[in-house]
Amino acid sequence: MKLINKQVKLNSRPIGLPKLSDWEIADSDIVQIVDGQVLVKVLMLSIDPAMRGWMNEGKSYIEPVGLGQVMRAGGIGIVVESRHDSIKQGDHVSGLLGVQQYSILAAKELTRVDSSLAPLPVFLSTLGMPGMTAYFGFLNTGLPKAGETVVVSGAAGAVGSVVGQIAKIKGCHVVGIAGGEDKCKYLVDELGFDSAIDYKSDNLSKALRAHCPKGIDIFFDNVGGETLDAVLAQIRYKARIVICGAISQYNNTQAVKGPSNYLSLLVNRARMEGIVVFDNAAHYKEAATEMAGWIASGKLKSREHIEQGLQNFPEVLLKLFRGENFGKLILKVADE
Amino acid sequence: MKLINKQVKLNSRPIGLPKLSDWEIADSDIVQIVDGQVLVKVLMLSIDPAMRGWMNEGKSYIEPVGLGQVMRAGGIGIVVESRHDSIKQGDHVSGLLGVQQYSILAAKELTRVDSSLAPLPVFLSTLGMPGMTAYFGFLNTGLPKAGETVVVSGAAGAVGSVVGQIAKIKGCHVVGIAGGEDKCKYLVDELGFDSAIDYKSDNLSKALRAHCPKGIDIFFDNVGGETLDAVLAQIRYKARIVICGAISQYNNTQAVKGPSNYLSLLVNRARMEGIVVFDNAAHYKEAATEMAGWIASGKLKSREHIEQGLQNFPEVLLKLFRGENFGKLILKVADE
Repeated sequence: MKLINKQVKLNSRPIGLPKLSDWEIADSDIVQIVDGQVLVKVLMLSIDPAMRGWMNEGKSYIEPVGLGQVMRAGGIGIVVESRHDSIKQGDHVSGLLGVQQYSILAAKELTRVDSSLAPLPVFLSTLGMPGMTAYFGFLNTGLPKAGETVVVSGAAGAVGSVVGQIAKIKGCHVVGIAGGEDKCKYLVDELGFDSAIDYKSDNLSKALRAHCPKGIDIFFDNVGGETLDAVLAQIRYKARIVICGAISQYNNTQAVKGPSNYLSLLVNRARMEGIVVFDNAAHYKEAATEMAGWIASGKLKSREHIEQGLQNFPEVLLKLFRGENFGKLILKVADE
Repeated sequence: MKLINKQVKLNSRPIGLPKLSDWEIADSDIVQIVDGQVLVKVLMLSIDPAMRGWMNEGKSYIEPVGLGQVMRAGGIGIVVESRHDSIKQGDHVSGLLGVQQYSILAAKELTRVDSSLAPLPVFLSTLGMPGMTAYFGFLNTGLPKAGETVVVSGAAGAVGSVVGQIAKIKGCHVVGIAGGEDKCKYLVDELGFDSAIDYKSDNLSKALRAHCPKGIDIFFDNVGGETLDAVLAQIRYKARIVICGAISQYNNTQAVKGPSNYLSLLVNRARMEGIVVFDNAAHYKEAATEMAGWIASGKLKSREHIEQGLQNFPEVLLKLFRGENFGKLILKVADE
């Protein structure tokens, strides 16, 4: 049986929000795999803010996606054929599968997923890169202490929701910033945040003063822009600001808005530090074990927002930048 | 003999650069000191960029100078009368003497200065607050390692010149940014910097690429604005940016320019951290001892730019913001 591989390729580098014409969807044949390789049928893909950065030319923490290349994406699939001892046909695996129906990768680029531990989508959210980002970024760079006030932006997103819940586990007072009443209600009622600020309807600076009367010890930022500036104005002595992302700035056609209030770092002897999850690869397993324990005991909840169909990738990516997802955004590509 | 005390008081809060009308110079009488107090004749005052911040209303690391109050200034004086056992008439002392001819302070607010160790002006520069700022900020927050590339802005200033020299002592490759050919020549020929960039004539980004081919590990920033942005674009993995000041922004009439390139912190897992020297007060003495040793052995050089006359304070302060000082700016108020 000849397999046809539908692929989504980067056609041009977007200016601002990606347009449909920035993508090309085309079929390709699948070549025979060689020793050490694995052929994977893609089941679902992780749709992440970081994807926008991978589409730009220039130096970053990872190579940009080349023009005409299949768009990079993490995902989970099932093994169709393996020519390596460590992986068998029928195994579930995760890795950078790309936005396509089938992926050929070296066995060492794949991680086996134990689907008896949690539903597969959880391995793209809390037990995947977003969960790892939250875990290492918050614990190793945020350095939380019980009783401290923690603010998280993008709090209903895949990373932010985990940061807030870990902060509660560590005994912090946790305030989430999210867009819309539903998300704010979810943070407090379902995830146990102490309170939530709706950036779409509240005055952010005023709300931060009300929700964080003692000031802010840790800010975990996924958003940047005005949000970062508002928080900087209210940080405490020796505050830590973890720069995880800046989704408000990724589709700018002008220069990124730098934080005007950065001198608050000086006044408060505070620190702003950037993180990239890949640096912690050697410790993913320990983190997954601890987080799986929290999930099992009900302390850590995971929510996924699942969209359907490879061909819808260009549109689904835009949902992320419009804040229309509620929970970790995942694109389902195929059934098993 | 009745002493008249000429004082420079803050008359109004400046918008942008301080104007002559923002000051009032007036004579006042000197009251009788009480037990525990000391009457000091002011000999010289330290003129610092931080003074501009003290003139603004609002929360900072120190209370603003009140309207109608004598302008705050660190200085060195000689004791005219003492009503405390720890200090004697004729002693040299340093402390926040204020911009005036005589100062009355509690003995515990003054530090005795041993004028046999170094000339008095050095106690306002390398062995004073600027030197302490450089020492603790660079060593404790910059965390230098031999072989790393260090960039210092405001490099010919009181803090920057000490940072660069300590960086050389620690085995770093040191590049200074300063204004004008004379200052750049001084940094390299007199202070032993590896090279210097003249921000007035060089293209800063291009010059940084040429002088720091491996990228920048530590940036000690006294300037902010475009300088900070240019450096952020060229930092290395795990770089440390020490925010000591932002003289380019202190007299803004618009909002401070935030660093547009701050997401370089994320890409490079780098850190930006603010410092205030006062946090290290408990360790000033150890630092002064080590730095006095470096001065004695010729490894650390100090340069002072001395102006004359209390009534010239308003104009001398402006020299600082126009970059017209060459070395630590000091205002001599009186002979002993």
